[in-house]
Amino acid sequence: MLMDVVQAHRQRVEAELERLITQRTSIEPRLQAAMRYSLLNGGKRLRPTLVYLAAEICGGALNPADSAACAIEAVHSYSLVHDDLPAMDDDELRRGKPTCHIAFDEATAILAGDALLTWAFELISEPCIDVQPQTQLSMVRALARAAGDLGMVAGQAFDLNSVGKTLTLAQLQNMHAAKTGALINLALELGALSANATEEERDALRRYGQALGLAFQIKDDLLDIEGDTATLGKPQGSDMERNKPTYPALVGMEQCRLWLEELRKEAVDALASFGSKADSLRELAQYVIDRDR
Amino acid sequence: MLMDVVQAHRQRVEAELERLITQRTSIEPRLQAAMRYSLLNGGKRLRPTLVYLAAEICGGALNPADSAACAIEAVHSYSLVHDDLPAMDDDELRRGKPTCHIAFDEATAILAGDALLTWAFELISEPCIDVQPQTQLSMVRALARAAGDLGMVAGQAFDLNSVGKTLTLAQLQNMHAAKTGALINLALELGALSANATEEERDALRRYGQALGLAFQIKDDLLDIEGDTATLGKPQGSDMERNKPTYPALVGMEQCRLWLEELRKEAVDALASFGSKADSLRELAQYVIDRDR
Repeated sequence: MLMDVVQAHRQRVEAELERLITQRTSIEPRLQAAMRYSLLNGGKRLRPTLVYLAAEICGGALNPADSAACAIEAVHSYSLVHDDLPAMDDDELRRGKPTCHIAFDEATAILAGDALLTWAFELISEPCIDVQPQTQLSMVRALARAAGDLGMVAGQAFDLNSVGKTLTLAQLQNMHAAKTGALINLALELGALSANATEEERDALRRYGQALGLAFQIKDDLLDIEGDTATLGKPQGSDMERNKPTYPALVGMEQCRLWLEELRKEAVDALASFGSKADSLRELAQYVIDRDR
Repeated sequence: MLMDVVQAHRQRVEAELERLITQRTSIEPRLQAAMRYSLLNGGKRLRPTLVYLAAEICGGALNPADSAACAIEAVHSYSLVHDDLPAMDDDELRRGKPTCHIAFDEATAILAGDALLTWAFELISEPCIDVQPQTQLSMVRALARAAGDLGMVAGQAFDLNSVGKTLTLAQLQNMHAAKTGALINLALELGALSANATEEERDALRRYGQALGLAFQIKDDLLDIEGDTATLGKPQGSDMERNKPTYPALVGMEQCRLWLEELRKEAVDALASFGSKADSLRELAQYVIDRDR
């Protein structure tokens, strides 16, 4: 049931991304090939799916949510391309394929990331008849705030500077709230805004998103220890090898599993007022916790 | 006269940038220090000045143009930080000071650039009572298109891939139109939009901008040959040393000087309908051609 919905949304955003990126022709086709390579690489499309699901449970249609779904995936792709760079995480594999700077070169990867980030803002500001300009401007601003030096970029910088250091649990949570949580919450907020949601609906989605984002990260840390390289598409144990601070390292595996269960409940409870309309989001919280990659 | 105006606009945008960047506090102060370092580094502030001048000659005030002026300078700063990276132009000096990746480190420089670019979109989408949301959305879109894979980023990629190659004059012009011209034209367009300019005014500014942008680049190439390192704040002769395609290399120094004179006339003529209101922009075209750094 959830998987059908997720599959449909995933296909929708991929078709849309493919269509939109194919339309673009600049004086530098290699740059656009690198953008395309990084964008259409078999990702889970969790964030676009959240955009669509949030729009739907707030009574919105999918069309007005398309731009936001594509924009957020473009931002996510850019962040992976830059995070993988030699000066950052120095990763050679991403989802089982060579990372952008390996498949192309470092300069092209930096520029492809820059271009994907910039494109996201072009996408999200395209004229849309179903969304008020005032609301669309709020969407632009929300995207910028979640992605920038108060959100995702700060999280990545903090993460890089934390390698080998002992963090408190609060520091680790703040880091992940910025690094991963900001974009997950953004996805829900953009979907809600595209559907002209009420303040109450947006607030419920915010509480759901907080729990989901934290659960997502704890699960990621657990997978790095328990998963295997073939399933993950990246080397298993890479966090430990780099001495990165993780939830299991701070509170232990067992505590992480208990915490995940609490977060699942929190996420599900936050959606109470939506009734059965929110079943997919509830199942999604379960999926995030149960996934093996 | 022009210098007083330019000085005033420069001080205005610097005070505004300083005020805005100081307000921001994230979990990663080092990232924000790198943003600040790159932003407040004694640049010429040509692009913000163009925003203000365009707004003024279209009958607009400066307040509604502030966000665009700051946003475009943030984008310009980000592009310099990324262009200077080892994988790109590998420059250690910028305006006589260590480049961002030398003063901080490579990862921080990549992230500071990312954050400055993202911040630009936050700035330009801030609520503004003097500009209609619809117009503001157009400004967001114009910024994204000028800065991305159809504009500045494509220009930089093309430039990197052109080192050691022989370009035609048309290719060189297309490259610079994307790499530098797009942002110069954008500055004029954003200023005009912030002033609710007419289509005719915007079109005149577009023609002015085309000439100014090309003149700016030809002059840059000439300075690389004729200027001295102390005045330029960067090593003189660096283009030649890298075997970069330049206008003097393609058409000769003398032809470049004649061309500059033609472009000055084109720029001045484009502004005819504005009358004496456009004197500063006319003088600016002269300044761009006469400058020694």
